[in-house]
Amino acid sequence: MEPLLAELRTAVGAGAVLTDVDVTASYRRDMMPLAPHGQPLAVVLPTSTEQVQAVVRACAAARTPIVPRGAGSGLSGAANAVEGCVVLVTTKMNAILEIDPDNRLAVVEPGVVNLDLRDAVEKHGLFYPPDPSSYDWCTIGGNLSTNAGGLCCVKYGVTTDSVLGLDVVLADGELLRTGRRTVKGVAGYDLTKLFVGSEGTLGVITRATLALRPLPQAPATLVAAFGSTAAAGVAVSRVVTEGIVPSLMEIMDRTSIKAVEQYLKTDLNADAALLLCQSDSGGEAGRRELAAIEQACVAAGADLVYATEDLSEGRDLLTARRAVLTALEVYGAWLTDDVCVPRTRIADLIAGCERISESVGLRIAVVGHAGDGNMHPTIVYDPSSADEFARAQRAFDEILGLGLALGGTITGEHGVGKIKREWLAKEIGPVGLRVHRGIKRALDPENLFNPGSMFELL
Amino acid sequence: MEPLLAELRTAVGAGAVLTDVDVTASYRRDMMPLAPHGQPLAVVLPTSTEQVQAVVRACAAARTPIVPRGAGSGLSGAANAVEGCVVLVTTKMNAILEIDPDNRLAVVEPGVVNLDLRDAVEKHGLFYPPDPSSYDWCTIGGNLSTNAGGLCCVKYGVTTDSVLGLDVVLADGELLRTGRRTVKGVAGYDLTKLFVGSEGTLGVITRATLALRPLPQAPATLVAAFGSTAAAGVAVSRVVTEGIVPSLMEIMDRTSIKAVEQYLKTDLNADAALLLCQSDSGGEAGRRELAAIEQACVAAGADLVYATEDLSEGRDLLTARRAVLTALEVYGAWLTDDVCVPRTRIADLIAGCERISESVGLRIAVVGHAGDGNMHPTIVYDPSSADEFARAQRAFDEILGLGLALGGTITGEHGVGKIKREWLAKEIGPVGLRVHRGIKRALDPENLFNPGSMFELL
Repeated sequence: MEPLLAELRTAVGAGAVLTDVDVTASYRRDMMPLAPHGQPLAVVLPTSTEQVQAVVRACAAARTPIVPRGAGSGLSGAANAVEGCVVLVTTKMNAILEIDPDNRLAVVEPGVVNLDLRDAVEKHGLFYPPDPSSYDWCTIGGNLSTNAGGLCCVKYGVTTDSVLGLDVVLADGELLRTGRRTVKGVAGYDLTKLFVGSEGTLGVITRATLALRPLPQAPATLVAAFGSTAAAGVAVSRVVTEGIVPSLMEIMDRTSIKAVEQYLKTDLNADAALLLCQSDSGGEAGRRELAAIEQACVAAGADLVYATEDLSEGRDLLTARRAVLTALEVYGAWLTDDVCVPRTRIADLIAGCERISESVGLRIAVVGHAGDGNMHPTIVYDPSSADEFARAQRAFDEILGLGLALGGTITGEHGVGKIKREWLAKEIGPVGLRVHRGIKRALDPENLFNPGSMFELL
Repeated sequence: MEPLLAELRTAVGAGAVLTDVDVTASYRRDMMPLAPHGQPLAVVLPTSTEQVQAVVRACAAARTPIVPRGAGSGLSGAANAVEGCVVLVTTKMNAILEIDPDNRLAVVEPGVVNLDLRDAVEKHGLFYPPDPSSYDWCTIGGNLSTNAGGLCCVKYGVTTDSVLGLDVVLADGELLRTGRRTVKGVAGYDLTKLFVGSEGTLGVITRATLALRPLPQAPATLVAAFGSTAAAGVAVSRVVTEGIVPSLMEIMDRTSIKAVEQYLKTDLNADAALLLCQSDSGGEAGRRELAAIEQACVAAGADLVYATEDLSEGRDLLTARRAVLTALEVYGAWLTDDVCVPRTRIADLIAGCERISESVGLRIAVVGHAGDGNMHPTIVYDPSSADEFARAQRAFDEILGLGLALGGTITGEHGVGKIKREWLAKEIGPVGLRVHRGIKRALDPENLFNPGSMFELL
């Protein structure tokens, strides 16, 4: 292995090749406790596309796998090291290279933190929508690789909807430029959207051209409390069928509400479900949207609806939603699922999670993006108990099965990674799997990039 | 060849296999006069996925290429027959299988006409955005294969932005299901968006799950006349930088204006450029948007701005834009380009087209989607003159070069087809081309589907 380390040091400089096990330990895994992870041979931190190319060529020659990694905020183990690999960390490639307000686009390196980009474009009256929960530390590169979502998706879509083009270092070290700087373009296959969400299995993204939107108006906020999840589900369906597109529509189930009440020492005045909505349309349009949402909630049997145009009050109302995961940590460690179901099946999903919770004897809090059906049932367990961990795993899998049974998908935004491979095979079937393997082989015949993520190449 | 014809007759029924040269002639080419086309062995019109599978298996066994085709409204020759092929026409698979207003989606067969889908979902208060000019006769299958755009794109994106999932018959006759019915989903590679825009080179789409939007408000309309294209370009840039997103923003240059004035026997009161804009936000928001567009036009030096909330008056104002191609036919045949440039370069593109027009000695009218930079410079020539046709071809190519030189793409919505292969190679470069070929080989190793469209496999 020594010759490879020497080549890596030549490629990126000795200081950017980490091999001390105590140091590399923190690059071994992401935030998903279930996923397997190995010990990397080295962690490299390149600062340019050319350095990435040199690292890829060296690893290809040595037949040493590369696991690309951003900040490590992922929840599927996609960035987890495989034994003896090189972890290629893009966090030092963190320049915002260009912001072009006239064409509403930005060109960035992959290590730019999501929040830093948001802040930088906001100064130009512009908006980069994707806002995963980890937006204050996750990187654009990771967002691209997982096709990250967030709270914005109900109105503004996911990461792929904001990408115009990519620079990608391929398995032979060549640089591929996909896409364009224009709003539209159909020259050739849509390689950009093929690389987005490919979890680092097809190449290393070293630059991205991102589409920006005009900065929305300050949001008005509404919360609605329900005595049953079924009623909350009906409210969501009504909002959808009545053609309202809120800029945020989140749901919390009974278990989430109770956890947050205990943690924040407050009364959320909701028995079974809480719906939190925002409109960022501004002015009369925003008021009309919020009034229509209020009507939909009342018609669905909400116990209580409260709306405000006050920004800081609105932020306070969202505190409950943002506090869920932290609140659950009072009870133990958590493991979060990411199923996405048709919007009409949200209440069924929550009911199913209650059944699974009873069956495994563990607390499961359901919180999620009601506006697009992307739910995060979160299982709480004692990490020191092997038995509880096993039951948590069982619940995790049963929720995936439930999501599929409800006509949904196993992952709305976290990805497949190294934890849901069998489930991906179930969801896409043998023909789908064969096509995936064919594309992987076409782009990475030696299985250099992130082997074993998403699927085994065989 | 007889055994294949017998198998095709078994597969789809004798009446759905056309071999009479007089009949098949109308399936030889689409609407692009420049593209090469051959004589098909047969034209088949299957009515089900199973029939498509049988046709594909029979053709694969006989090593006879398949060219998938919708209505034939394409403008790149992508649906043109290659010599001795089977043209697989999807127009008889024209059922709208499902409209689900609660989840805002529709499931359709590929032969559904765009307008029929629009009308059907409108009854549920829903909206299918993609609206190519041929929307009253083009099919969804063709729209998917070319990733079609239209006037809606500035606000609502292109076809790929409205697709959730596809059924695709692959080269071995197996059925691939991509995507999902949920709003979000990241399970595996985004195969859906890989097939969208692949111009029938990777498989035959037999079903699509489409995302719908709430029906927008009735549009308010504005026209602005400019004494110079530069001023009109400044107006477009101002609209973009001020964060306004009109639902339509079209531009006509001097040559388009003159042609339409002569054809409609009217005075458009515009010397050099006409901008036509709509807002479908409704109410106060719509008025605010239109007022902001008006301000941007005035500030850019518009000679005249006129706005109306009256629907039928608005429709009348758009008549000029819709009449351009018909008006040009008074002078001869037309050949339309489809470059897309950064929105800040629209005036440069128009100026460049004026230079090319002078240089080749042919009329070139520039009309296009100013809101997204997708321009259709349209060359008028005498089809009976080989010399004029050759000059038209030269102009066509020079405009593609101009589009690339301005930082744009050779095609915003019409596709590469059999007419821009060399230009695709120029735009995406050797690495891009290699990746395209790798993906094509992975999915269609025998080059069964639409060989020679987009690129030669080699």
